Amino acid sequence: IQPELETLGRTTILLLLVIYFYQGLEFPSFDGKDRVLHINERNYKKALKRFDMLCLLYHEPQPAHKGRQKQLQMTELVLELTAQVLEDKDIGFGMVDSQKDAKVAKKLGLEEEGSLYIFKDDRVIEFDGEFSADTLVEFLLDVLEDPVELISNPMELRAFERMEEDIRLIGYFKGEDSYYKAFQEASERFQPYIKFFATFDKTAKHLSLKMNEVNFYEPFMEEPAILPGRQLSEMEIVEFVHQHKRATLRKLRAEDMFETWEDDLDGIHIVAFAEEEDPDGYEFLEILKDVARDNTNNPELSIVWIDPDDFPLLTTYWEKTFKVNLFKPQIGVVNVTDADSVWLDMSNDEDLPTAEELEDWIEDVLSGKVNTEDDDDDCIS
Amino acid sequence: IQPELETLGRTTILLLLVIYFYQGLEFPSFDGKDRVLHINERNYKKALKRFDMLCLLYHEPQPAHKGRQKQLQMTELVLELTAQVLEDKDIGFGMVDSQKDAKVAKKLGLEEEGSLYIFKDDRVIEFDGEFSADTLVEFLLDVLEDPVELISNPMELRAFERMEEDIRLIGYFKGEDSYYKAFQEASERFQPYIKFFATFDKTAKHLSLKMNEVNFYEPFMEEPAILPGRQLSEMEIVEFVHQHKRATLRKLRAEDMFETWEDDLDGIHIVAFAEEEDPDGYEFLEILKDVARDNTNNPELSIVWIDPDDFPLLTTYWEKTFKVNLFKPQIGVVNVTDADSVWLDMSNDEDLPTAEELEDWIEDVLSGKVNTEDDDDDCIS
Repeated sequence: IQPELETLGRTTILLLLVIYFYQGLEFPSFDGKDRVLHINERNYKKALKRFDMLCLLYHEPQPAHKGRQKQLQMTELVLELTAQVLEDKDIGFGMVDSQKDAKVAKKLGLEEEGSLYIFKDDRVIEFDGEFSADTLVEFLLDVLEDPVELISNPMELRAFERMEEDIRLIGYFKGEDSYYKAFQEASERFQPYIKFFATFDKTAKHLSLKMNEVNFYEPFMEEPAILPGRQLSEMEIVEFVHQHKRATLRKLRAEDMFETWEDDLDGIHIVAFAEEEDPDGYEFLEILKDVARDNTNNPELSIVWIDPDDFPLLTTYWEKTFKVNLFKPQIGVVNVTDADSVWLDMSNDEDLPTAEELEDWIEDVLSGKVNTEDDDDDCIS
Repeated sequence: IQPELETLGRTTILLLLVIYFYQGLEFPSFDGKDRVLHINERNYKKALKRFDMLCLLYHEPQPAHKGRQKQLQMTELVLELTAQVLEDKDIGFGMVDSQKDAKVAKKLGLEEEGSLYIFKDDRVIEFDGEFSADTLVEFLLDVLEDPVELISNPMELRAFERMEEDIRLIGYFKGEDSYYKAFQEASERFQPYIKFFATFDKTAKHLSLKMNEVNFYEPFMEEPAILPGRQLSEMEIVEFVHQHKRATLRKLRAEDMFETWEDDLDGIHIVAFAEEEDPDGYEFLEILKDVARDNTNNPELSIVWIDPDDFPLLTTYWEKTFKVNLFKPQIGVVNVTDADSVWLDMSNDEDLPTAEELEDWIEDVLSGKVNTEDDDDDCIS
């Protein structure tokens, strides 16, 4: 190495030393090797066979507009980097053009442009979240894990109980060879969006679960919905999940943010911004949870909670679009078609609204008394 | 609009409709407008004056190597996107070349290539974390907030108590015009890495704080270190923080990951991987916290906890480099100069080590009995 080093300038050597001195935190950058396949009628069957998991991005045709072209290129780059990072995991990646490959798309059931479809065993999982390498890699690693986690001691039970933000199911079964099988198969249909847990032992008593009983925990709720213990079929469990899965209070997550946003109620969302790490935000969130618990049986109500800390790149965009200050908690109604919005006046810095005041305001929203059109002349926010 | 629409293809119209139909979650992409200044001897003073906050990236000279050139371009792009997102916040951004602008760098006290230096009022804050737009924007928004948060009711106190991962200080003062001022000034020196809280009212009683007393909470510790209530100067508080700030158990955070990594003990780190969201990971972390609490007075011990969920892009890199399976908790010793490592054998799936077993292993590490060199022939991990 010596003679080669001598040809390098002093700065470069210093730099090499610094890089050399600390190792263990090297972020990957795209190495330029093409790993993403262009899927067409000739190669799609082979691709499906070749990999444990195949991820297909269903995208718009090559756009004429320069800016859009660049965006599509960036999207492909994100997919390339994801493929590179997950190189050893036997996952295939491909792109399907909604125009050129329309036939393949139809055969594979691809429908929403911009979505990534993951083929695993005989299931298809749609990813309709933030298209960044971070989010994608984390999502795909989750898909690789077992769809059911076993809970076998009080500490693990505590971990389960702490996950209040997530939709969680837990079932109590005799063992692997039991009605657990139906539960496991049901879990595969919701992985990784909805978390499934099972226990085979006395841990179940702490949850007062009876044998073969399945409990569904809506986010932030203390009491579960119960599917009584009997011979449950996969379809019964799947039905039960579909019945309960739109939560009264749901947190916007990078991995399914667009899906959540498209699941609006009559064209609007009630949106609450609160930073959980901030004392003010935490307090507001606790009030919001109280309101959600009181109204959990109202099918008209589903509040989207956004923690700005989870979406730094959107924070200033939201501030501009909604004309609100996101250093403080906010709650408002957003029209999803035009992003028109109206926000509850909480300008009195000292006092957050009480649960009652919040409930009154929500009632006014649901009855249409508070809506995004009325304020278009006199500005409230 | 009608005639123009007719010239577009059907797909494009559909796409426009989809995009039009849902609004409110548009991620920014770089608009191509240059916002980042190239700082030199002629313009640096003006730049410092012009903005409330000036962020300067101190970077290596234009490299000859193509790959490195591209990396520097990507870095600049990250800075451009950050500048675009924060456009309305009166923050300036610039690049300083360590060779061409060596004089300016020296004047400004820039030392570490790859670091971002933030000039705010008469302070300089060094950012030595993950260089992504997400992390940078979140970091800079934190710097814009007040350096001290006020705690004024039991709910906010609970928020404070829940932040066990962070280094936190809390002080009890008469009001804004009191010794609080010294506390506030001290807080500015550590913002946003170390969190400062204050209370002016009876909330203090819950923490059994005396008037003018300042408590320092090390991450994961239940009992604070106490700086007794008397006329404290800014420097006394700063000293106190420096004395305590290297924690027995510290979580790796994107915003200061490289700084943490460079703060090794004798060239090694004890590194624990545990996913907090995972029952196994949670359980292991609780054991780790017990060990840390028992050994909080040992200055030789500082365990770096990494939650793989926080670093999806590094997970497979770590698995390869350290030859460990990160779907499960792991603890090991890592040599920071060559990333050589040795890991505690936890292959017995059922049982995690007890706190005692973990302590014994840590003792062996600290005494040198377990080290990264011995296994180089017979592979343990």
